[in-house]
Amino acid sequence: MASFQPPDVLLLGPGPSPVSRRVLNAMARPTIGHLDPRFVGMMDELKELLRFAMQTRNALTVPISAPGSAGMEAAFVNLVEPGDTVVVCQNGVFGGRMRENVVRIGATPVMVNDAFGTPVDLEKVDAALKAHPGTKALAFVHAETSTGVESDAQALCRLARDHGALSIVDAVTSLGGIPLRTDAWGADAVYSGSQKCLSAPPGLSPLSFSEKAVVALKARKTPVQSWFLDLSLVMGYWQGSGARAYHHTAPINMLYALHEALLILQEEGLDAAFARHRENHLRLKAGLESIGLELLVAEKSRLPQLNAVKVPDGVDEAAIRKRLLSEFGIEIGAGLGELAGKIWRIGLMGAGSNPQSVDRVVEALAVCLARKAA
Amino acid sequence: MASFQPPDVLLLGPGPSPVSRRVLNAMARPTIGHLDPRFVGMMDELKELLRFAMQTRNALTVPISAPGSAGMEAAFVNLVEPGDTVVVCQNGVFGGRMRENVVRIGATPVMVNDAFGTPVDLEKVDAALKAHPGTKALAFVHAETSTGVESDAQALCRLARDHGALSIVDAVTSLGGIPLRTDAWGADAVYSGSQKCLSAPPGLSPLSFSEKAVVALKARKTPVQSWFLDLSLVMGYWQGSGARAYHHTAPINMLYALHEALLILQEEGLDAAFARHRENHLRLKAGLESIGLELLVAEKSRLPQLNAVKVPDGVDEAAIRKRLLSEFGIEIGAGLGELAGKIWRIGLMGAGSNPQSVDRVVEALAVCLARKAA
Repeated sequence: MASFQPPDVLLLGPGPSPVSRRVLNAMARPTIGHLDPRFVGMMDELKELLRFAMQTRNALTVPISAPGSAGMEAAFVNLVEPGDTVVVCQNGVFGGRMRENVVRIGATPVMVNDAFGTPVDLEKVDAALKAHPGTKALAFVHAETSTGVESDAQALCRLARDHGALSIVDAVTSLGGIPLRTDAWGADAVYSGSQKCLSAPPGLSPLSFSEKAVVALKARKTPVQSWFLDLSLVMGYWQGSGARAYHHTAPINMLYALHEALLILQEEGLDAAFARHRENHLRLKAGLESIGLELLVAEKSRLPQLNAVKVPDGVDEAAIRKRLLSEFGIEIGAGLGELAGKIWRIGLMGAGSNPQSVDRVVEALAVCLARKAA
Repeated sequence: MASFQPPDVLLLGPGPSPVSRRVLNAMARPTIGHLDPRFVGMMDELKELLRFAMQTRNALTVPISAPGSAGMEAAFVNLVEPGDTVVVCQNGVFGGRMRENVVRIGATPVMVNDAFGTPVDLEKVDAALKAHPGTKALAFVHAETSTGVESDAQALCRLARDHGALSIVDAVTSLGGIPLRTDAWGADAVYSGSQKCLSAPPGLSPLSFSEKAVVALKARKTPVQSWFLDLSLVMGYWQGSGARAYHHTAPINMLYALHEALLILQEEGLDAAFARHRENHLRLKAGLESIGLELLVAEKSRLPQLNAVKVPDGVDEAAIRKRLLSEFGIEIGAGLGELAGKIWRIGLMGAGSNPQSVDRVVEALAVCLARKAA
């Protein structure tokens, strides 16, 4: 068996996004001990950088040592107890995964369903919260990776607060690509992933808990069912020097990568990054329209970083994706769930959001579909 | 804020162990998509390499996408259901963590306690299994990282089998350093970590389930409480092409690193790696004795890869460790739990197990303790 030599692929799917050489090189620096004071100093910087990116002052802001799915699970198992009621918004695949998490805790999910490709309906959420007084949490996906839809996180967090519920916000695909104002919106639990608009390799899940969420965590009547994801223990591990308690061995080199990726975001500035994602999305939209392709999502709710493109009638979508990958070295994503076979997903995330990427994928699609720009 | 530049440290603590430039470079290769067919091919190779290292033909042999603590949790939450009884052997810190896992599942732990620094007592285990007929699983730590003790995994697996219980084996520190004969011993659930004798960065947990364990998983009456660690879903993600189901986004670059680290082990050969760990342990033992230091563990149960060294009376152990790190660039570990302050832990794991490392740490200790080799 030989060393694995990955091909050079332009990653324009739903994640991972392209990881820059700068981030890869940071990750390849020498491994040091996770209790080394210099590493602890890096952890402190990392928390500060995450607070910047998530626009929060929350003390409990850490990267969970596992992918975004574990970040989701951490949010639920720490805040929800058996017997609790959670209103879960589902307008894509990831709302369904939230439901799974609630059920496995022994809590009751109240589903608010909206069609894949549309945002969460605020009135339906309000009605569900009214119909279930004492609801522990309202959970929703800010940027649905499976459909390319943005929901109104600010309004949803306000609804939760108005009904005395905690808000759990899936920001896996939003962080770094569109505004995510954790504190200004009063979001209580926010989790994300390293491999979307931050353009670090997959494997880490930034997570932030508001003070109110920490109070709820401390007031639990039952232990958190997961030892690995128990934030009262994770907090002890990530807190300042001195009392720092060993919990697990942090994924040292992955944290180097996330640190570097967040530095890059800080250097660019959040507003500049959001503007860049928006501009390249508009360039993609124009390019797609020039070859007769349409976006699935209504303009108002379109995510710039994740573009759901309708597959034209009679086109074998899988064959096109395969050809893009093998002939053009470009990865795009397929539809998931009820959108399987109906859409392609073109991600313009983080380092992947640039005019060259847009032009390459539009040109390649034009060739594969044998269409000429109008 | 600037890029993080880790210092060059010789990692001779309880893990992470030194990661070679070859492995770091493999990790820094371009990130590709986790559904890319070339990546799926790499995953197949990785499973094969893990089977080699764990000495098994188990179909369900995968790296869990999180550190060893998550591997432990995966073993427990998949095999143990609420109401089950689990005999847990504790002769160090990690047996206590196993107990935590059992309790959080809502199952009953029956503890078999042995002094820190001694191996698990087979007769006590036999008695506990006899006293609790219908015990679902026997759980023990093969190589106790907190004390440097090897327990008799073969005999313990046999005891479990004789009593109709599944065996859950913590092989975090044993894999790659001492023989771990998963199939020959009939171990049912074995988990490990990437950052010990495999010398990959921390963040992954190799795990293998026997056919009997898979049958138990499939026969569960209750869902696995963790969605992220549910092996019936993880299996779907790691199985061969075609039916491969999306579960979570694999930590792509970390998997490159593990692949490369396992290749290095395969090139050396298991027996050669075990012999090397043993030889360097003996060299360390001789060196320590030459400066008047003693090992904690009786010869019969000593782990070659994790050496618990008694702190001489009147010596400030933390000050010595600090000086080793700051002046000599060498990291060693402190005692944990009831051994805190009483021992140092010198790891000679994977790439760290070589004569140069041994000589450097002995010489540095001699200077710090102001002792001359006898």
